[in-house]
Amino acid sequence: MSFIAGIDQASRQRNSLLCVGLDPDPARFPAQLAERSDAIFEFCRAIVDATADLVCSFKPQIAYFAAQRAEDQLEALIAHIHERHPGLPVILDAKRSDIGSTAEMYAREAFERYRADAVTVNPYLGRDSVKPFLAYRDKGVILLCRTSNPGGSDLQFLEVDKADGTGGKEHLYERVARLVSGEWNRHGQCALVVGATFPEEIRRVRQLVGDMPLLVPGIGAQGGDIEATVKAGRNSTGMGLIINSSRAILYAGTQVDDGINFAAAARQVALQTRDEINRYRVG
Amino acid sequence: MSFIAGIDQASRQRNSLLCVGLDPDPARFPAQLAERSDAIFEFCRAIVDATADLVCSFKPQIAYFAAQRAEDQLEALIAHIHERHPGLPVILDAKRSDIGSTAEMYAREAFERYRADAVTVNPYLGRDSVKPFLAYRDKGVILLCRTSNPGGSDLQFLEVDKADGTGGKEHLYERVARLVSGEWNRHGQCALVVGATFPEEIRRVRQLVGDMPLLVPGIGAQGGDIEATVKAGRNSTGMGLIINSSRAILYAGTQVDDGINFAAAARQVALQTRDEINRYRVG
Repeated sequence: MSFIAGIDQASRQRNSLLCVGLDPDPARFPAQLAERSDAIFEFCRAIVDATADLVCSFKPQIAYFAAQRAEDQLEALIAHIHERHPGLPVILDAKRSDIGSTAEMYAREAFERYRADAVTVNPYLGRDSVKPFLAYRDKGVILLCRTSNPGGSDLQFLEVDKADGTGGKEHLYERVARLVSGEWNRHGQCALVVGATFPEEIRRVRQLVGDMPLLVPGIGAQGGDIEATVKAGRNSTGMGLIINSSRAILYAGTQVDDGINFAAAARQVALQTRDEINRYRVG
Repeated sequence: MSFIAGIDQASRQRNSLLCVGLDPDPARFPAQLAERSDAIFEFCRAIVDATADLVCSFKPQIAYFAAQRAEDQLEALIAHIHERHPGLPVILDAKRSDIGSTAEMYAREAFERYRADAVTVNPYLGRDSVKPFLAYRDKGVILLCRTSNPGGSDLQFLEVDKADGTGGKEHLYERVARLVSGEWNRHGQCALVVGATFPEEIRRVRQLVGDMPLLVPGIGAQGGDIEATVKAGRNSTGMGLIINSSRAILYAGTQVDDGINFAAAARQVALQTRDEINRYRVG
């Protein structure tokens, strides 16, 4: 099954648009994991197993593993998700970008080495930098469009001339949305990253891309509003959103009672977040 | 010594603006390396030792290592360069980009784990995504500006309104050059990637950024013209260029005589390339 179909199916089966982002920071782990050589795997595995019935996907952030020399634990984690929670797509958050011959290597890293179902990609290098990822037809390619950080506006919010020759203007992120939903999405593999901190821009992207899935980071620790996000971003069927929360879920219980119940605390916040999202999917 | 000072010193000492890109593709290795478990390290080490007196830096491309599960060989390779060829800067070509908290992890990966002297970064996420790299004051941060691939024009060549309020226009890559050479370069750590396939745009970037170093990929296998590149990109002192060649040097001899003399053949092409570059630095 393709990533796009898989995410839709997982969302329906679990009645959830929530994605849990796996950004493991050993400095914030509970004490009982501190001595383990596989602490990163073990922390994430516990979170995964405690929340798998509440989410439409998991999104490991590769930088957190790479900074700790823990690529092997990332491989083991994704293998664990595929094995224990079949049908739940894994999005490798890597924001890769390079020219074609190198992008082939990044695609191999994401899809063959790590066996991710989708990968995030930076669009700045244009169409041929994305093609090697699209060559894996069952995989998802999630392009950065409007990111949730303050500096995102430096380039993404610049006004460019529209391509239609009318003399009208659009923002760079709108051009990215058009490019991706047009020719880059010929085989229906694409999605877009649009930050929850900008609901008006989520609404604009939704207008431009039809029912295409949007990966929305920025709720939770980054302060994005769930109601505004869901109302702006839901598609015609109340779906089409992959709403990511990382730190607010991962570390919900790590500072309480020495973090002994961190996985249960994470589950509690995931449940609340899923339910809050569902409250605004229709109506 | 800072990266920017280090690249200048290495360029002068070796009378070279050439950077050898280390993009190890095991499918193209000579037969004698095929059975070795450390073939990637060994191939790159031989190239490094054969060319170190002819270059101003080495640029390992991390995707080629990651696709082969060879992060340990990349660590060993960079350690080898620092130990055996002290004073020769290492540019980690990773084109990373993410929001601040994650960018911190990528900066740690590049500078603490791999001990690179500089890293390539994608500017699409704006200032706060670059800041964690800039926090390492001795390190270089090399931002993508105008890339050498055909699709680079999709976004980089779009026209945006100038920030000076005159109603004038500039290309997105020019805005990136201005942003980077202005506020992002407060501590003199930045450089820009400008592809050799567009000499007119190298010239334009040089006008915008003063003497800032430009990393120029795209000569050799990608077809960029050396004379045009150097004349367009040299700064006021005939310096300020880091001209990268990867495949044309790495694989110069791997298809001849079973590749037994691949390192000597690489040296020969590196020497020719360095000398051709030097022919156009002044006059």
